[in-house]
Amino acid sequence: MLFLGFECTGCRRFYPPDLLYCCSSCGASLDAVYNYERWLASLSAEEWLFRPGEGVLKYRELLPLRPSASPISLGEGNTPLLKIRNISNIMNIENIYIKNETVNPTLSFKDRAQAVAVNAAADLGLSDVICASTGNTGVAAAAYAARAGLGCLVYVPAGTPEEKLAIIRAFGAELRIVEGNYGDAYEQAAREALGRGAFNLTSTYLNPYSIEGHKTIAYEIAGAFGGVPDWIVVPIGAGPLLSAIYKGFRELRLAGWIDRLPRMAGVQAAGCAPIVKAFEAGDADVAPWDSPRTIASGIADPLTTYPADGTRTLRIIRESGGAAIGVDEGDILGFRECLAREEGIVVEAASATAMAALVRLKEQGWLDKGQSIVTVATGHGLKDMAVSTI
Amino acid sequence: MLFLGFECTGCRRFYPPDLLYCCSSCGASLDAVYNYERWLASLSAEEWLFRPGEGVLKYRELLPLRPSASPISLGEGNTPLLKIRNISNIMNIENIYIKNETVNPTLSFKDRAQAVAVNAAADLGLSDVICASTGNTGVAAAAYAARAGLGCLVYVPAGTPEEKLAIIRAFGAELRIVEGNYGDAYEQAAREALGRGAFNLTSTYLNPYSIEGHKTIAYEIAGAFGGVPDWIVVPIGAGPLLSAIYKGFRELRLAGWIDRLPRMAGVQAAGCAPIVKAFEAGDADVAPWDSPRTIASGIADPLTTYPADGTRTLRIIRESGGAAIGVDEGDILGFRECLAREEGIVVEAASATAMAALVRLKEQGWLDKGQSIVTVATGHGLKDMAVSTI
Repeated sequence: MLFLGFECTGCRRFYPPDLLYCCSSCGASLDAVYNYERWLASLSAEEWLFRPGEGVLKYRELLPLRPSASPISLGEGNTPLLKIRNISNIMNIENIYIKNETVNPTLSFKDRAQAVAVNAAADLGLSDVICASTGNTGVAAAAYAARAGLGCLVYVPAGTPEEKLAIIRAFGAELRIVEGNYGDAYEQAAREALGRGAFNLTSTYLNPYSIEGHKTIAYEIAGAFGGVPDWIVVPIGAGPLLSAIYKGFRELRLAGWIDRLPRMAGVQAAGCAPIVKAFEAGDADVAPWDSPRTIASGIADPLTTYPADGTRTLRIIRESGGAAIGVDEGDILGFRECLAREEGIVVEAASATAMAALVRLKEQGWLDKGQSIVTVATGHGLKDMAVSTI
Repeated sequence: MLFLGFECTGCRRFYPPDLLYCCSSCGASLDAVYNYERWLASLSAEEWLFRPGEGVLKYRELLPLRPSASPISLGEGNTPLLKIRNISNIMNIENIYIKNETVNPTLSFKDRAQAVAVNAAADLGLSDVICASTGNTGVAAAAYAARAGLGCLVYVPAGTPEEKLAIIRAFGAELRIVEGNYGDAYEQAAREALGRGAFNLTSTYLNPYSIEGHKTIAYEIAGAFGGVPDWIVVPIGAGPLLSAIYKGFRELRLAGWIDRLPRMAGVQAAGCAPIVKAFEAGDADVAPWDSPRTIASGIADPLTTYPADGTRTLRIIRESGGAAIGVDEGDILGFRECLAREEGIVVEAASATAMAALVRLKEQGWLDKGQSIVTVATGHGLKDMAVSTI
């Protein structure tokens, strides 16, 4: 097993594999560490980037899991990288790609994290999972828990799209609708998970096992793109998806299979943009956001009680030479419609922010016409078809 | 180009590639033919069954298309083959697999056909497509037409799930809701397509180009399964999906890469089961069904004006040593719920028929506990979440 344990992202303290959510010394979030030397001794770029088969567990050497004879999977990952055909002209940017995470088993990128999570739950001997969710994590957690035979309890904020609630219930999970925003659901889920000894799969930086699943997007992009795009543009709440993708590229560079890293752009709706605010102000730390107000429910996270998660993402954006971008509600709706009508891809509102951000990145001088950009389409539009106003 | 043209399935007359829907001599449906000798001279089983990349056009040698520098694709196909983990015990059948076509770009297997269709439209110099649909074909046609920049007009019967209508509109297609059943929509679409000179993409045996896309499911199953399962169980309306999968396996046997063919089971809801009725009665020909009545809207096709399509499917079922199976509404709902709760897979009602059929196949002595079965999950449950009664 190449997985060694976790390192604190604050004080660098090391922890062996266990049921852990944060550093017991400084409270910072954790990051999985591996024996990379042994990994590199064992294979070639070809074998890693074009590994056949389906499911993120095909990359299990670099996932925080023990070997298993019957891993749980729903065939997540292995998603298409699509080149934009028609919108490029409108935007005057030539090489825009969409990493289409909407075709994961439960129609969002969260399946990658939850696939890792339920297998980690088995390693840790846990029989119940709990999460707070704006919808997608809850759907994914409920599906993988069903497949794994684990109990599942999902907390969502009031106002979560009805389609997402219906599908969570269909998987047999218990659903609790919390009056308040995502932060309130987060708190209740955390309390309940501690009380029950259940595995908390909330998709912030809280669970250091599950977030490793998102790294596999980087491996797939590098393989399909044939190298490193200039920019990766990611819709972010707290931002673990952005960090994990960057980590994946760093691993590939460590292996010597790529010679540079992409610049990371994190995109938030202007109505809930704590990371963008700190980025634009040049602040070292992210502060919570008051009164989130956006149709992009999937990234409507005010970071109320965990602004340090935003700071972790902000640092990675800066380290990569990237940018944090806020986009307006009108642009989100406009690009959502445009992607459907011009490219045949229906995404949820949160995903449309990534396309909307390209216009801003170009206006602000961050990117040139000829640069290559991969935007991540995080979730399928069918899960929030009714969304058209706040 | 290995694609030669079409052969009439009735009188065997040959037609070179052109805008064709049926034999002008006898009126029977057409079947694409290829120069298989040249195909076999060019590659190995490994190269074909494990061909890297995404999109069904990676198999373009055996698709009815000209070579193209910029083919249209949404990354369709390449879907997971999932082994049932928890329901097998309940059913007392050990090796049940699901070919999960719900994770195609527009969430159904129809994407494979429509990917071929829009590229064929380009080859034929057509700028508009039309189809009749119970929903899934319309969604897929609208998406691929958007991507290809083609005009798209979709006829659906009244009562088609609202989710499917919303997504068809989102892709910018024109939608016409027909009072009556699928057969009525079929007639209107056919008239309008002839009148406009548009490409008719209706998913029966009508369009001999598009149906070839479904063959690729056989290639993928053979690769992922590592050979030939004993049974392939397919929900069917007219049945082109079943026929195409069988054709794909026949091609692989022609190549010598497999040594036998699977038995094909076609599944219909008992409330609309023209093919099952003919199969059980030992009839040579299928007759239209009066008053279809089932929640499985995706396969609710009474074959009113084209019963010969059902006969074509019936012959293939018999040739394969297979069976046609009717399933009750209660079982459809029960297995839909069971798949979600036990396996983490949400399918539309039409797809649940395939699981429900396994019980009947076993009861009727068609299959043994130890045999291997692949059921095709044709469409995602999120497109008809509201369905619970007729």
